[in-house]
Parts: sequence; C-alpha cells; structure tokens
Amino acid sequence: MRLSELSEQSGITTATIKYYLREGLLPPGRRVSATQAEYDESHLRRLRLVRALLQVGRLPVATAREVLGHADDESLGRTMRLGAALWSLPHGPDPDEDAPETVAARAEVDRLLDRLGWTTAQEIGALSPVHRSLVASLAALIRLGYPCEGDYLADHARLMHQVAVRDLDMMETYPSQSEQVEMAVASAVLYEPLLTSLRRLAQEEESARRYGL
Amino acid sequence: MRLSELSEQSGITTATIKYYLREGLLPPGRRVSATQAEYDESHLRRLRLVRALLQVGRLPVATAREVLGHADDESLGRTMRLGAALWSLPHGPDPDEDAPETVAARAEVDRLLDRLGWTTAQEIGALSPVHRSLVASLAALIRLGYPCEGDYLADHARLMHQVAVRDLDMMETYPSQSEQVEMAVASAVLYEPLLTSLRRLAQEEESARRYGL
Repeated sequence: MRLSELSEQSGITTATIKYYLREGLLPPGRRVSATQAEYDESHLRRLRLVRALLQVGRLPVATAREVLGHADDESLGRTMRLGAALWSLPHGPDPDEDAPETVAARAEVDRLLDRLGWTTAQEIGALSPVHRSLVASLAALIRLGYPCEGDYLADHARLMHQVAVRDLDMMETYPSQSEQVEMAVASAVLYEPLLTSLRRLAQEEESARRYGL
Repeated sequence: MRLSELSEQSGITTATIKYYLREGLLPPGRRVSATQAEYDESHLRRLRLVRALLQVGRLPVATAREVLGHADDESLGRTMRLGAALWSLPHGPDPDEDAPETVAARAEVDRLLDRLGWTTAQEIGALSPVHRSLVASLAALIRLGYPCEGDYLADHARLMHQVAVRDLDMMETYPSQSEQVEMAVASAVLYEPLLTSLRRLAQEEESARRYGL
C-alpha cells in the first residue's frame, strides 16, 4: 500500500508517519519509484506498537527506537531478543550497590531463584535490569522495615510465573518471531497497568468478602 | 519517646519530622508540656509509611496527606477505609467517556466481573478509580487493536485474586485495623514494582525454558 493508504488504515496522519520514518521507529517501505514506496501489514503492525510505546507507555522516542531495534535484531536468539527488548524498557531505579539492604536483598533474591529453580534468571543475574529492579524494590522494603519473608515472595513469584506462562502461550498464537517479540513488548507496556488494576480491584473484592463494605 | 528519640529510632532528622508534622503527614504527639510532646510506636510506623509514599511511591505531599487521611478515618467501614486510601493513590488516566473503545471496554469489564462473580466490584463500578483505570487500560488495548479476549483477561484476574488473597492474609497478621490499612497502602506502593519485576523475570525464565537462550 501507499503512504496515504497506510495513513488511512492506521488512522495516523502522513506527517506523523513521516516523522516516525525519519526517527527510525518505522522501517522504510519498499521503494517503487523515486518518490514512492510500498508499505505492508508489517508497517501497520509496527505503527500500532509505536503508538503503544509512545502514547500508552509514554516512552521517549530514543528509548522506543532502542526497544524496537532489539526487537528487530534477528542475530539474537529468541530469549535474548525478547530479553533485550524488554531490558531497554524503562525500569525502576538500580539498587544502591553499597547499601547494606542491597546486599540483604540480593541474598534474598538468590535464595528465591534457587528455591523456584529459575536457573536462567540465576545465570543472567544482575546483567538483567529486571533482576536489578527486583533487588532494588526488595531493598526498599528492607530499608523501610516492611516484611518480605521468603514464603510471601515465593508465592507471588509462582503466581507471576503462571501469568508468564499464559503471556507466552498468547504470544505463540502469532506466526512469526518478529510478531511474537513485538507482542511481548506491547504486553509489557499495555498489560502491566491492567494487572495492577486487576490486583487492586481483587483486593477490594476480597476485602468486601471478608469484612463487608 | 521525645522527638529526638523518634528521630534516632527512625533515622529521620528532627527537621524533617517537624516538616511532616506541619504538613499533617504525621499526627501530633501527646503534649506533655508547653514545649514537649511524647511520641510512640504508631508515630514510628507512620514515619515508615510516609517515607514509603514520598520516597518510593514518589507521591506529592498533598496526595500522601489525602491517602493517610483516608487510612486514618475510623468512621469508614473496613473495606471503604482500605478502598478510600487506595483510591487516592495515583492511578492511570481516566477513560475518555465519549470514545467508542471505552464503551466496548466497559462492556468487557462488566462481562468479566459477572463471570468472576466479583459482586462488590460490580456494585461500586465506575465510582472506583480502580475500576475506571481498568476500563481505561482495556480501552487503550482495544483502540490499538491488541487482543484481549475474555479468557486471557479472566485467567489473569483469577491469578490476581490469588495474589490479593495472600496480600490480605499478610495484612491480617497485623493486630489493629489502622496497621492493616497502613500495610495495604504500603503494599500497593512497594509491592507493585516488585510484582512487575517478578512477571518480567518469569517471562524471561519461561522463554528460556521453551526456546533456549
């Protein structure tokens, strides 16, 4: 399809699409003449993801470009491609390495991963910003004196693993690896607020069941 | 204890504690003379929560005051007290009421709550900012054309209900209702980033199990 059709089908103005092209958020179309290019379904899909990252995830353009660059990197294995894209999404702050609560939190995360048998997470360790965010969140709890004993953490981790299994099942309904990685990124940005709302709503519901309104 | 001891035990300077007192984030101590007041364990606990809200949750002072005001409101029933405190925490944007995807999202949430038998959530409905955020997140998915069919959503909601059951079990280990509500607020602010990290880590782990690194 032409640029004008891409604009029509996506509901995004041609000026904005051109801006995304210039910023490297959208790969160029197949050039068919000096002034025209052809776009296809993959461009439509990519535009949808760009919207999700910029509008819903409120990512800066440079961050979105980095995320999409990893998602497109076919030289990486599947997990690393998924990982690299997720890793460039915004994370919580890194832990303060010198603080005693960081040492305690790291030991707790080590015990947790060991207990769960999450061997990849153990191997990758602090290389992963996800791992570092987990340590930082836990360190904040410890510093403030909030309880976070192993059972509570392990229970939640198991439930989150069940969530992840469903997430990956859903991704697998997409035919190509590129689409799957795109879906993973979209799911991180779009479904995290959904899960947060569902948890708070479930807390209200459970509270009403236990104690009445 | 005196202000100086409260400062020592909490690790927060007296200047900062006085600021929290002026801003109404910390209830005044019991006055014992014209210039002195006595503080107790509840002040220590409250200081911890104030730190969590301001430092980790990055809430503006006015929002933190509102959250704590609801948590302290003994005229409310237990669920409403919990709800009101959680409701004043920052939420995602409200849905755009006029948009067709909002209508579709609201219908989907109605079906979901019906299917789950979450009758309180149904009754309270859009009065709850949590409900509104859920509709807004879902509307964003629909607008961008990402799939969110009922089974996936219901599965996640059930898992989040299991999380909530554990959250409330943990709260119930605290003796007083005030402490329980404080814990609920702390848990929303402090445990949400933890759950997000656990989900992403679980996705990496599950991906490595399925596809290798």
